Amino acid sequence: MTTAREWLTTAKGLWDPGLRAAVDRLDPHTRVVAAYHFGWVDADGNPSDGSAGKGLRPGLALLVADALSGAPEKALAGAVAVELVHNFSLVHDDLIDRDESRHHRPTVWTVWDDTTAILVGDVMLSLAHEELGLAGTVGGSPYALPASLALTAATRELIRGQAEDVLFESRDDVTLEDCLGMVAGKTGSLLAVSASIGAILAGADERTVDAFHTFGFELGLAFQIVDDLLGIWGAPAVTGKPVFADLAAAKKTLPVVWSLDHGGDAGEQLGEWFSGRTARDAADPAELQYAADLIEKAGGRHWAAEQADAHVAAALAALDTVEISAGGRATLVDLAHFVTERKS
Amino acid sequence: MTTAREWLTTAKGLWDPGLRAAVDRLDPHTRVVAAYHFGWVDADGNPSDGSAGKGLRPGLALLVADALSGAPEKALAGAVAVELVHNFSLVHDDLIDRDESRHHRPTVWTVWDDTTAILVGDVMLSLAHEELGLAGTVGGSPYALPASLALTAATRELIRGQAEDVLFESRDDVTLEDCLGMVAGKTGSLLAVSASIGAILAGADERTVDAFHTFGFELGLAFQIVDDLLGIWGAPAVTGKPVFADLAAAKKTLPVVWSLDHGGDAGEQLGEWFSGRTARDAADPAELQYAADLIEKAGGRHWAAEQADAHVAAALAALDTVEISAGGRATLVDLAHFVTERKS
Repeated sequence: MTTAREWLTTAKGLWDPGLRAAVDRLDPHTRVVAAYHFGWVDADGNPSDGSAGKGLRPGLALLVADALSGAPEKALAGAVAVELVHNFSLVHDDLIDRDESRHHRPTVWTVWDDTTAILVGDVMLSLAHEELGLAGTVGGSPYALPASLALTAATRELIRGQAEDVLFESRDDVTLEDCLGMVAGKTGSLLAVSASIGAILAGADERTVDAFHTFGFELGLAFQIVDDLLGIWGAPAVTGKPVFADLAAAKKTLPVVWSLDHGGDAGEQLGEWFSGRTARDAADPAELQYAADLIEKAGGRHWAAEQADAHVAAALAALDTVEISAGGRATLVDLAHFVTERKS
Repeated sequence: MTTAREWLTTAKGLWDPGLRAAVDRLDPHTRVVAAYHFGWVDADGNPSDGSAGKGLRPGLALLVADALSGAPEKALAGAVAVELVHNFSLVHDDLIDRDESRHHRPTVWTVWDDTTAILVGDVMLSLAHEELGLAGTVGGSPYALPASLALTAATRELIRGQAEDVLFESRDDVTLEDCLGMVAGKTGSLLAVSASIGAILAGADERTVDAFHTFGFELGLAFQIVDDLLGIWGAPAVTGKPVFADLAAAKKTLPVVWSLDHGGDAGEQLGEWFSGRTARDAADPAELQYAADLIEKAGGRHWAAEQADAHVAAALAALDTVEISAGGRATLVDLAHFVTERKS
């Protein structure tokens, strides 16, 4: 069988040239900034071998099309489009959150300025729809327009999630339900459309498209919960972040919010620990360990791990309802585990 | 005949409900911000009768479809889409330029914050493509995808123009050619697609679409040059800006750049006046009058007025090549004069 890791490498060979061709349509200045963000060049425009991540979203789009039709290239424009939408949101979110580094490289707004980050993000979103427009007109795909429409619904959700994420930072009454809704928008929607766009472009029926949407959505929730666990307990070798990074940043991620709501005495003590704490406070390792232990004691770590498993199970259940190749199914199942384990 | 002004009022009755329906698809928070920007509600979400402009772009899209087919509603999604793209760029440009007011109301970033302005602009761009996606799938228009594609090319140009506009502010070697290229992107591209999208959605052939693209593009250049003239010599009653506003802001608009390049001694004196001058300098009316007189003496005012006329003529020449209804032609001709005179 093709493992998820092998597939992502194969898939990148397909979508990476398409992404580069899309970026090549930009004017010279904007093109350099986009190429820098993707890790293809340094800030002066000289070639660089920086990586831009594994390409989970475009890899998933191509894998779904391959599993359904044996022709992953049917979803090529969709793969490039979801990668562009993902990166549009990264460039804008880095600016909004004032994050200074991504993939171990300075972010666009730090290398250039706010204006450049806004405009390059904007044009990436537009390029995503241009890619699908070209697939429909030049390429003749009859499914390009529904694919574009699916992407806009996901983008609305993505932006709702990011807006809520920022709003929640200044509220102290955020419930677990609020947080889950935010994560559904911010992480679920784009993984959902990454899977469903592969099905749309392969010409699948509505029931199959919906099933893949559910597969991607559930995978997205599991992915985010695992990310939250890694943000507290590591592992640095995988994520590039130190242990307790999210606690040092005073981020109330899902395991924290669950513990505050349902964690009894330990949850209350955790609430006191977070009270008035900001990302600017010095990160005393002993204090962070204390907070992490409270989350564990409150049951937040256990709850989160169970939730991640439940979402993977829901993803796999959706996969059971569709007719796809045996090889494609095996790789999709491996991908579901790969995404949520991230042990290597 | 239907005058341009009458048409814009009629057209607004068509596209305004569509725009409101598009904004209604947003989550409640983002919806209020967008509705505020369009002048439908105040910052607390209470109904307001603030206006969001004349709707030149959507009115043009509907007029072209009407002139070609007698059925303006064919271009409805295109009209809503160009208005959304126009407003996406206004919200982001207001933030980038730190403009505090638009249509006599505080801009989004001043009422909320930078994050809100970024995200609301983003989602307006996405809504534009959603509108066309819906027209193609639910509405069954076979031309929705080419329309979406045309919009992405215009958006690339729009963003190139805005990026250049910002870059030029920190350069003192900007040529007339540079400026004209910037204006072509920033103003020409969106008026061009406003006209061509009407033709695309009415099912016109490529030659006709191209002719309307030229019509809108030339109109956009004329529009911008007239705007530059009004930015120097008024009239406040039309533009809401005081006389000499662009000189007070130290903006090197087209009449200025032409004068610097071709204005002889007066041009050199103008260069000295601009040298080291910034928008933060106090605006002494006598000094501004002195600079305005230099532009006039250098020939910049005359050149700009001639250029505006030439672009209107080029727009009308493009219009001569297409087969459209006599009534539609008359209103389009009136629109070309309306846009570039703006005397009332």
